[in-house]
Amino acid sequence: MTVSSSPHNPSNSVIVRLRLFNEVGVLNRVTQKISDLGGNIGAIDIVRPEPDALIRDITIFTHNPEHGEKLVEGLREIEDVEFINFSDRTFLAHLQGKIEINNRLPLSTRDDLSIAYTPGVARVCTEIHKNPENAYKLTIKGNTVAVVTDGTAVLGLGDIGPKAAMPVMEGKAMLFKQFADIDAWPICLDTTDTEEIISIVKALAPGFGGINLEDISAPRCFEIEERLRNELDIPVFHDDQHGTAVVTTAALINALKLVRKKPKDIKVVVSGAGAAGTACSKMIMHLGVKNLIGCDSKGAIHNQRTDINQSKRWFADNANPDQEQGSLKEVLKGADVFVGVSAPNILDAGDIRNMEKDAIVFAMANPDPEILPEDARPVAAVVATGRSDYPNQINNVLCFPGIFRGALDCRAKTITEEMKLAASHAIAETLDEQHLNPDYIIPTVFDKSVTPKIAAAIAECHANET
Amino acid sequence: MTVSSSPHNPSNSVIVRLRLFNEVGVLNRVTQKISDLGGNIGAIDIVRPEPDALIRDITIFTHNPEHGEKLVEGLREIEDVEFINFSDRTFLAHLQGKIEINNRLPLSTRDDLSIAYTPGVARVCTEIHKNPENAYKLTIKGNTVAVVTDGTAVLGLGDIGPKAAMPVMEGKAMLFKQFADIDAWPICLDTTDTEEIISIVKALAPGFGGINLEDISAPRCFEIEERLRNELDIPVFHDDQHGTAVVTTAALINALKLVRKKPKDIKVVVSGAGAAGTACSKMIMHLGVKNLIGCDSKGAIHNQRTDINQSKRWFADNANPDQEQGSLKEVLKGADVFVGVSAPNILDAGDIRNMEKDAIVFAMANPDPEILPEDARPVAAVVATGRSDYPNQINNVLCFPGIFRGALDCRAKTITEEMKLAASHAIAETLDEQHLNPDYIIPTVFDKSVTPKIAAAIAECHANET
Repeated sequence: MTVSSSPHNPSNSVIVRLRLFNEVGVLNRVTQKISDLGGNIGAIDIVRPEPDALIRDITIFTHNPEHGEKLVEGLREIEDVEFINFSDRTFLAHLQGKIEINNRLPLSTRDDLSIAYTPGVARVCTEIHKNPENAYKLTIKGNTVAVVTDGTAVLGLGDIGPKAAMPVMEGKAMLFKQFADIDAWPICLDTTDTEEIISIVKALAPGFGGINLEDISAPRCFEIEERLRNELDIPVFHDDQHGTAVVTTAALINALKLVRKKPKDIKVVVSGAGAAGTACSKMIMHLGVKNLIGCDSKGAIHNQRTDINQSKRWFADNANPDQEQGSLKEVLKGADVFVGVSAPNILDAGDIRNMEKDAIVFAMANPDPEILPEDARPVAAVVATGRSDYPNQINNVLCFPGIFRGALDCRAKTITEEMKLAASHAIAETLDEQHLNPDYIIPTVFDKSVTPKIAAAIAECHANET
Repeated sequence: MTVSSSPHNPSNSVIVRLRLFNEVGVLNRVTQKISDLGGNIGAIDIVRPEPDALIRDITIFTHNPEHGEKLVEGLREIEDVEFINFSDRTFLAHLQGKIEINNRLPLSTRDDLSIAYTPGVARVCTEIHKNPENAYKLTIKGNTVAVVTDGTAVLGLGDIGPKAAMPVMEGKAMLFKQFADIDAWPICLDTTDTEEIISIVKALAPGFGGINLEDISAPRCFEIEERLRNELDIPVFHDDQHGTAVVTTAALINALKLVRKKPKDIKVVVSGAGAAGTACSKMIMHLGVKNLIGCDSKGAIHNQRTDINQSKRWFADNANPDQEQGSLKEVLKGADVFVGVSAPNILDAGDIRNMEKDAIVFAMANPDPEILPEDARPVAAVVATGRSDYPNQINNVLCFPGIFRGALDCRAKTITEEMKLAASHAIAETLDEQHLNPDYIIPTVFDKSVTPKIAAAIAECHANET
């Protein structure tokens, strides 16, 4: 991927189908036009030959949907080329959804039926009725996770409701399968009532081995997660909080190794006091950081503030040991680490220059970070973002598959603080210390060693705790 | 399958692993012993050779689990044979459950991720947010069914709870996939409260294209289904009621063709006034039968009875036009059709002889019918049961895959009475009239033409209704 603030993105690609009449240079005129209009050509396929023409599909990476439409207009005007149609790759990929069921047994004969269904299944039911723990052995429970949302805080789109949240939850289920071989099913709830969500998830629990809460808005997400953690005997994990925190902490562990600083000696400023910011702050302090200051849009959170809700109150009571006051830019002076899960473009190079020597900057606002890496990197020692088109992507996908794989494998009833910290260390240790460098403090999401390492760390914690 | 009341059943088969030392006749001693003990040998596999022996797996069909244990004991005693272990085929098949998720798209590169997940997925979410109908096109909704139970009336096992119900619901999901390519997911609820079940299913509805209620005890199942039908905009179907009714009606249509009688002229006696009996009776009357009498364990239901609940009240008010009184055996005299969804062995050959000429007997109590076919068949013109080891199996599997396939394909918002009757006719018409005979009034569950025929019939109804 190119490093640019508006890259060509495959998710914005279009596929155009053209009839190219057999004239010299016709394909060249097409590629020239695409290039002139700023399109980036992917595959060029032959669909079929015709007596006097060739039907071709051309994949073009575009900046955004409008750019795609402009390209299509341009292609319609080329001589000796007939425009047939075009399709948007992302929408094509989503047609009829992204996951399906697969039967693990054949069902082609009466014998098959009598084993998988009646009458054989009755004996299996009876075994579970006698001892409910057998559900882990004889049903899908031991390998399933419900991906539960109410659609109130989906990506950066906000409260778009349960139906519109489905594509994200299906995508999440795909990630569970791809990265941890876990069978996850999307549960998109048509209610935003905290008590109702809690009681529904409790009622659904018998068939699942774990619950992954997703894209539920704060502050309801805190109560829902806490109550379910206490009231269910299967692991409950709110990825937006804890997944982000685990991966951020992993990145911080390696960044600190690079600059040779210790958690207990550093000052960390966290911008963003919502679900992710709070979870990150708690984990970073659990790592051993004493001096952490949380900031919201009004600046540092301290105990003289009268405008803060219960979740921000945590920052006033448990963080900011010197009760520093002032704007984000003011408290950032002399800090060793900046962690941003807030808003785009709120810092500049001058702010980074005011930080301590060998500053670490995690600017994770999405899609536009708190400060662009090209501005921060010349001054800071290490820069990370949430984006795949810059080095050091802090991505939850590194964490939740392994966390659940581990929890399901050892049948942990809950994900403890120790397990999360162990997961952070497991991610960090995936990179050999000698390979660490400022552009490589965290493994890529496609590193297949990450999930089993996290799973093993979770199992070890579980063994120590029981 | 052999026709016997205690057949060898594959669901009761065991696989024994033996070490056979290299002596003449050793395998013969093994097969002789199995045969002596009444076991039926399936496959004999070689696992691996050893210097002085051969390890073999032998599949043995047994009568029941106790029979399996007896066989194992016998095999332990054979000379030159070492017993290694044995496993139960049904339990082996159920290990880790029977369904899994399959990703419909690759997720191996950053490009894949950006299309299936962020950032591309955001545009798909937005399209659905703008127009919720797009969920049918861009998510799994258009092909998914929730198989919902509270585990209160599972098979003949009764109230065994949601965890123990899972193997049945997974089996149902397999049937949906195998017979209609529908992606169904088991939802086993840890509540038996009618209102709570209704509100949970309503909350789950955004992600599903249909709801299949299953094994919920009467009378709660009636209210749950009726309320959900009225309050949801996706089809809701209680298979225990309507699946049974559709297939029974299909069998009745063909049986009446064989004996050349018309619905309006016949007398039908239904034994069993629960969920299935009520649904069967309503459909049979919808087919045109005027004289139908419902019976419970106390005999005919009529409007002088003071001991009947609301659902039995329906039989007093809408059926039994002559308000006949008396026991099942008494009102069965002169009847043309017996439909049993009640209890084992409550009729004898004499009762069938007292019915009208060319009697039709559907004895569907499971596993032991109201009267065994070997007793009824010499007297009746047509006999059907719910069992796979007799001719004419009346099996719901013939119905629900096609009903949902059709409803999902045409996006019907509900399953109407007309659709169910159309489904019955579609099943009946699968058999060419010239092939109809007393032992073949209904297609087998493996007849691949049934599902598309039902689906087409549903779609035609839907087109006529809208």
